[in-house]
Amino acid sequence: MSQIRHALSVKRSDDFAAWYQAVIAEADMAEESGVRGCMVIKPWGYGIWERIQRLMDDRIKAAGVQNCYFPIFIPLKNFEREASHVEGFAKEMAVVTHHRLIADGKGGLMPDPEAKLEEPLVVRPTSETIIGDAMARWIQSWRDLPLLTNQWANVVRWEMRTRMFLRTSEFLWQEGHTAHENAEDARRETQRALEMYRACAEEDLAISVVTGEKPENERFPGAVETWSIEAMMQDGKALQAGTSHYLGTNFAEAAGIQFQDREGAQQFCHTTSWGVSTRLIGGVIMTHGDDDGLRVPPAIAPQQVVILPMLRGSDEDGALLDYCEKLRAGIAAQIALGEKVRVLLDMSHGKAAAKRWDWVRKGVPVIIEIGGRDMDNGVVSLLRRDRLWNDAAKPDFAALSVEQAVGEIGSLLEEIQTGLFNEARTRRDANITRGITSMGEVAAHYAGDARFPGWLEVQWSKPSGDELEQVVDALKAHKLTIRNVPRDSAPADGTCVFTGKPAVERILIARAY
Amino acid sequence: MSQIRHALSVKRSDDFAAWYQAVIAEADMAEESGVRGCMVIKPWGYGIWERIQRLMDDRIKAAGVQNCYFPIFIPLKNFEREASHVEGFAKEMAVVTHHRLIADGKGGLMPDPEAKLEEPLVVRPTSETIIGDAMARWIQSWRDLPLLTNQWANVVRWEMRTRMFLRTSEFLWQEGHTAHENAEDARRETQRALEMYRACAEEDLAISVVTGEKPENERFPGAVETWSIEAMMQDGKALQAGTSHYLGTNFAEAAGIQFQDREGAQQFCHTTSWGVSTRLIGGVIMTHGDDDGLRVPPAIAPQQVVILPMLRGSDEDGALLDYCEKLRAGIAAQIALGEKVRVLLDMSHGKAAAKRWDWVRKGVPVIIEIGGRDMDNGVVSLLRRDRLWNDAAKPDFAALSVEQAVGEIGSLLEEIQTGLFNEARTRRDANITRGITSMGEVAAHYAGDARFPGWLEVQWSKPSGDELEQVVDALKAHKLTIRNVPRDSAPADGTCVFTGKPAVERILIARAY
Repeated sequence: MSQIRHALSVKRSDDFAAWYQAVIAEADMAEESGVRGCMVIKPWGYGIWERIQRLMDDRIKAAGVQNCYFPIFIPLKNFEREASHVEGFAKEMAVVTHHRLIADGKGGLMPDPEAKLEEPLVVRPTSETIIGDAMARWIQSWRDLPLLTNQWANVVRWEMRTRMFLRTSEFLWQEGHTAHENAEDARRETQRALEMYRACAEEDLAISVVTGEKPENERFPGAVETWSIEAMMQDGKALQAGTSHYLGTNFAEAAGIQFQDREGAQQFCHTTSWGVSTRLIGGVIMTHGDDDGLRVPPAIAPQQVVILPMLRGSDEDGALLDYCEKLRAGIAAQIALGEKVRVLLDMSHGKAAAKRWDWVRKGVPVIIEIGGRDMDNGVVSLLRRDRLWNDAAKPDFAALSVEQAVGEIGSLLEEIQTGLFNEARTRRDANITRGITSMGEVAAHYAGDARFPGWLEVQWSKPSGDELEQVVDALKAHKLTIRNVPRDSAPADGTCVFTGKPAVERILIARAY
Repeated sequence: MSQIRHALSVKRSDDFAAWYQAVIAEADMAEESGVRGCMVIKPWGYGIWERIQRLMDDRIKAAGVQNCYFPIFIPLKNFEREASHVEGFAKEMAVVTHHRLIADGKGGLMPDPEAKLEEPLVVRPTSETIIGDAMARWIQSWRDLPLLTNQWANVVRWEMRTRMFLRTSEFLWQEGHTAHENAEDARRETQRALEMYRACAEEDLAISVVTGEKPENERFPGAVETWSIEAMMQDGKALQAGTSHYLGTNFAEAAGIQFQDREGAQQFCHTTSWGVSTRLIGGVIMTHGDDDGLRVPPAIAPQQVVILPMLRGSDEDGALLDYCEKLRAGIAAQIALGEKVRVLLDMSHGKAAAKRWDWVRKGVPVIIEIGGRDMDNGVVSLLRRDRLWNDAAKPDFAALSVEQAVGEIGSLLEEIQTGLFNEARTRRDANITRGITSMGEVAAHYAGDARFPGWLEVQWSKPSGDELEQVVDALKAHKLTIRNVPRDSAPADGTCVFTGKPAVERILIARAY
């Protein structure tokens, strides 16, 4: 029996972490920059981010949220105002202390001691405190509410151990910030953003997620409630892929965001914030990648179809290119997932076979190869990235007429999008274990060499304070964390796996990124 | 005769600088953030930037340039490598020296002395040096060339005197960076980017510009040639609205960007860089604004048409809103300037008249007001922002049938776009004075109380070094600068206005932002 010769040198089953780095390198998505904790996002990785941005931005705008831009620098005093917030972030921020360089007398440069800032500035790790200042200026009356803002920006959190896309010192994200008249409105917005993230993850990124509330110990610093979407990676670990926070009046009180209510009284606003980041790209890799590289869901693929002409350096090449260009134009006029199909005729240097495997590793959803003989026969060879190999361990090319290729491309791309999502959802559902009732069983589940232990859904009594800390520590001993309280899980009907008390709700437990 | 009651309290002719600030405030585009030199860009201002981004990004991608993202932090050593570059920027950069805050023992926070960086990091003022590092990794052979990259990013230059949009410590921009096999290719790319900026300024922003090369003293630090587009503001001053640099092999030698050429020899690449920023928005304001606020060219207007229902808080309001919604949907289905028309049905709080003037100050190209009587008669009242007042000093509303309003909106918006450009070009052309042959005449032209002295096109001998410095100083005494050597000006045929030597080319002289 033939053996498939995969396009990557590392398999997921051999070393998942090494495989992850290999996909990023081989799909040419990003690389280390040489600047501590910062990555360079290369065209294919950035193209995927641009697609995610475009689709998420459409969803944000459709909700009536308006984009703004706020300063990258935040004065220290803003952090001093909100104690629990600074507690959560103070340990990992980049601090600007000088505004000029001078020669150091040794042929190099140094910060100019004469140009020391009176008050150091922090490079934003998140913008609640600076946007709070603006909201305090912008809001006078209930008529100004709700105030719905968002910004696309870079943020910096000084991370000691970094991993590309998943945890970098600088990353790109959007952060929504809203202010409301009361808790009910703010909680509704928190849920709206959460649902928007679920829809984007599932419909655009084809990643199946569980939405739910984070436990008290995992709350955003200063938040009253933190909600998340959690995705299962192919190694069974969880990835927190987006968060939405109800902040109560904590940040409003710190920044003085007040309004005159309908009865004429002064009140503090209830605020929310919510964000997703370039971390989503890590989620795409670990959800859809395989041993041949990345597979990009068509909705977020910078190119959905690549046409590779088999050029021979001969006189026929001109006619072949004309033939390919006609096909390209025909495909570009088609609609898939509500947009014009993104198709590239790849005329770059290099042999067609090498270029094919480059595109396989990049995970473009559909590759179409056309040689001189194909042209003469009026056919094309089409390869689906989601079903790469045939039973003979060869690339599973299908021969189609040009009319078929053009006519079916829209539904094919939609089928691939749905297929990737179904595959992710099926794997997720198959790897959530229920019915475990003791910490001993929890430990046993994650012991041994079960390679993909997945997640556990267990019941708990929702302990708080010190009692919760004990639970967190007990889980930590097995490298486990509580992911969230799934919004749509069944009511509790048993006892707490940790405390033995009557359970009040179900939670997800997992190893996590 | 009636007197027009303008929507702004300050007129351009009274105090242009105060008028500029008033437009930004009254059109609700941006505001001071409280963080030194940084502004908050509000939804209307940011929406204009998003439109400029979208149109420019389409032009960038159409040229085969690929977007990437590079680190915000640049190590000091990168600046130390390129002497003339650091010379140009060293004086005004934000320097990160610590990566953690701790309690200062007085209830506040301070940089943690234990967390001092071994090597300070600079917040990028521009990214030639860090992108050069990446290019050195990415380029091996002539087959890798040209390498065409761009990033959309924030940059920081510590400015002592700031003015919103025109000069802020943090600003948003795109920076293109390309590497080529030889000087010819790199110079061609420099000109391509310059031409792209001209087209975007003229076709999208409706700003008439002069393209040309900057004199030696105005070159980008480290560049061999710097080219610019220069726009004339309504006070006659020049605004450098975009630059494109041919960098020779200077940055390639500093960063080691080498390639094996077609003959197998190692060579340094020739590189270019080019950028435009949020400064363009300042140019839009000072080109198209009038005494009633901003006028946004339709191509870059976040909303091109606003429909204002004259609600009365009565039972009829429901029918009126239905009527307006049908009109909105009809207009939204129309095409103007190659895109679907952007139309908003404004149902926000507030009286219709107040809302009208808000939209006038924001400069939305077309306002449509509809009251109950209009509905009964099947008509709408349409106001063009570019021709606001009638002879009786009243807003010049036109009564149109619904069918007319829908059917003509596309061509109306295109007419407004063209009209704004022609107005700007006519004003620009009328305010360039030629034929001046001595420095005395130059001084006389800018002396006195001529409010809009505009620009001079004079001939010069293209002095260099010390001789050029003398010219620069002589001009500086009159607050004048050399803007550029227009690409399309007539050949020189006289003597140099500064040196009396035979002239070799023509240059533009102006006061500038």
